[in-house]
Amino acid sequence: MERYAKVIVSVGLNIQPGQELMINAPIETSDLVELVTNEAYKAGAKLVTTFYSNEKEVLSRFKYAQDDSFDYASSWLDKGQTECFKNGGARLVILGRDPELLKGQDPKIIGRIAKASSASRREMMKLITNSHSQWSIASYATVAWAKSVFPTLTKDDAVDRLWSLIFSAVRVTEPDFMEKWEKHNAFLHTVSNILNDKNYDALKFIGDEPGEHTDITIGLAKNHVWCGGSKEGMNGIDFNANIPTEEVFTTPHRVNVNGIVKATKPLLFRGQIIKDIVAVFENGKIVDFKCSEGEEAFRILIESDEGAARIGEVALVPNSSPISKTGVLFNETLFDENASCHIAQGQSYSTCMIEGASEEELFEYGANKSSVHVDWMIGGPHISVIGIKNGIEEYVMVNGEFVYDSTGF
Amino acid sequence: MERYAKVIVSVGLNIQPGQELMINAPIETSDLVELVTNEAYKAGAKLVTTFYSNEKEVLSRFKYAQDDSFDYASSWLDKGQTECFKNGGARLVILGRDPELLKGQDPKIIGRIAKASSASRREMMKLITNSHSQWSIASYATVAWAKSVFPTLTKDDAVDRLWSLIFSAVRVTEPDFMEKWEKHNAFLHTVSNILNDKNYDALKFIGDEPGEHTDITIGLAKNHVWCGGSKEGMNGIDFNANIPTEEVFTTPHRVNVNGIVKATKPLLFRGQIIKDIVAVFENGKIVDFKCSEGEEAFRILIESDEGAARIGEVALVPNSSPISKTGVLFNETLFDENASCHIAQGQSYSTCMIEGASEEELFEYGANKSSVHVDWMIGGPHISVIGIKNGIEEYVMVNGEFVYDSTGF
Repeated sequence: MERYAKVIVSVGLNIQPGQELMINAPIETSDLVELVTNEAYKAGAKLVTTFYSNEKEVLSRFKYAQDDSFDYASSWLDKGQTECFKNGGARLVILGRDPELLKGQDPKIIGRIAKASSASRREMMKLITNSHSQWSIASYATVAWAKSVFPTLTKDDAVDRLWSLIFSAVRVTEPDFMEKWEKHNAFLHTVSNILNDKNYDALKFIGDEPGEHTDITIGLAKNHVWCGGSKEGMNGIDFNANIPTEEVFTTPHRVNVNGIVKATKPLLFRGQIIKDIVAVFENGKIVDFKCSEGEEAFRILIESDEGAARIGEVALVPNSSPISKTGVLFNETLFDENASCHIAQGQSYSTCMIEGASEEELFEYGANKSSVHVDWMIGGPHISVIGIKNGIEEYVMVNGEFVYDSTGF
Repeated sequence: MERYAKVIVSVGLNIQPGQELMINAPIETSDLVELVTNEAYKAGAKLVTTFYSNEKEVLSRFKYAQDDSFDYASSWLDKGQTECFKNGGARLVILGRDPELLKGQDPKIIGRIAKASSASRREMMKLITNSHSQWSIASYATVAWAKSVFPTLTKDDAVDRLWSLIFSAVRVTEPDFMEKWEKHNAFLHTVSNILNDKNYDALKFIGDEPGEHTDITIGLAKNHVWCGGSKEGMNGIDFNANIPTEEVFTTPHRVNVNGIVKATKPLLFRGQIIKDIVAVFENGKIVDFKCSEGEEAFRILIESDEGAARIGEVALVPNSSPISKTGVLFNETLFDENASCHIAQGQSYSTCMIEGASEEELFEYGANKSSVHVDWMIGGPHISVIGIKNGIEEYVMVNGEFVYDSTGF
């Protein structure tokens, strides 16, 4: 656990002397938060401020609050956090959500709360997608999450099993864990560089899943940039936004997406499980879809705003990635997105575009705009990816694996 | 515990429909916070936002932070909370501090952190002392606090014993607890009214403690007002700022205080115990003092700023109050101040002054100004209180009890 805290502070956040740190974390994770706080102060953090959340208080609102509560968000708090981040503070989110927390709650109310909250966080979201300062997301094996992943195990066994998977995925099981992270970041940089040199116009995902067929061409934005592993923030400091991370990712074109695509893993959205999405894209927009579960939640997601039915990210993850190899469905995007190629409804990352472009230019190049950013998984062992440049097609991935030499993986 | 949550929300805060609520609470108190959150939403609260604190993170800062950390506070967060309170949000603080948390830490560093923090909270403090919106302080029997009160008991027994004292003190042991609170508030209003009619120029505290002798004359500010029990905030809503509360209190004159006074209970200040204070006041200011323990902490307190060596509150509590009768030293001002007459170094409450006066007028009338407000106990069974009006002296309390008919107590 101490190694994990060190990875979070040194690799994830790369805290600099004199820098503030905000942590958002469930109350159950306080022992990890304490270790992270120790490491952050050791690294010279000026002040560490933790915002603990309690899922029971979230449920209390659903159970007892009046209707006028649901369109309201604490903008005074978001404003404060935004100010801290804007002034150079770093931000850590520790996840340990109960994937089924909001099961049975009215999706319309869930949507209203989320909409008010995104509106209130708009400026923070923008600063985060611009990597204005360092930010990172890590996770913690809470009982609720562990039980959702391993429902047949006892609480203790489920938590132990999930911790052992987390510790493997975040590469802290060996004493040379810091070197392992260096090598891993170097490999992700290599793949990103290859793809940046190729500068494809579009990627085609094709696959044969029993019953459904993925066949979609995802245009890439003009001046898109492939990212992966550590990156440099606007403040010049390298950080890893996700712990773990296995993906290389870039900006699709918000209009040039056409075809049909099937989710290869369930999506957890606002506490609800959405299963077996099949979506038809026309000119960048989802025009038809179905789900075997959570269809209403998916509808609310893509109707959040104008940009939510379009995509803002496409990411490649080989099927041989350590998380994918576990074969476990984590019910948590941070892990599941690192087990599979994916796309994200909503906001694009300006860091995945050429530097120095204005917001208007980015939009013109094809980068999507939205108040949401929700990943869903479309990769797997039956999916191949083809790069298209000036009409010429070549394989990027075959049956879920990169065609490039993957030494270092 | 549910009754206690109801008292906090209905009697303490008197939450109104559509109102926001901020809660500051230690993470160990989450079960009470959940019940309070339920009650607040039932009362129509728009949003409840809890800020959980973790004492281990506080210690981490002392242990690992660089020196430049200690003059810094998260003003962006205080600004946000102030905005919420200013816009009509209510505020609850739940206490459960380890009284010995900072034992052994450098008092200079404790003082620097506290100074930075008070500076950052100045506007909030002002709004609170003006009762701009409802606020309340309650408590929770955490293990650390309970063990400090009952060091010889096991953890579980200490917590059980402290809870039973808290539940008695906050009047929730009987099913008619809401009526009991009404009667209690009515009695405190009666005593305040008597003292307001008397409109004394000064109070003299005299006592014979073995070894030391209290003999001090505390002038009262011009246009002072006695308060006690529930009061109306600037927003027109009644609330009880302390749960429990047994005191009637008013504003002393910042210059007209002369004599010697001895603390009758230890004072807990910034995690440190200060014992057996004996202070000499001349023209309102402490000119000499000694303590048997924590003398340096007391010095730091009264040297916080110009107003910290003067007093901003004088309060009367009969020795027969339920908390006093337990004979327990709680190591927590919220309880110990309600067991004994006390004075407070530092800031006065503008609610204990005639309405409508400007800040300059309040100062001219004798109300003290400071960034701190720290109560310490000077009452007890051997202490009598004499009211002085136009040179005529009459007893207010004899041997720790009011001379007034105390029906209703």
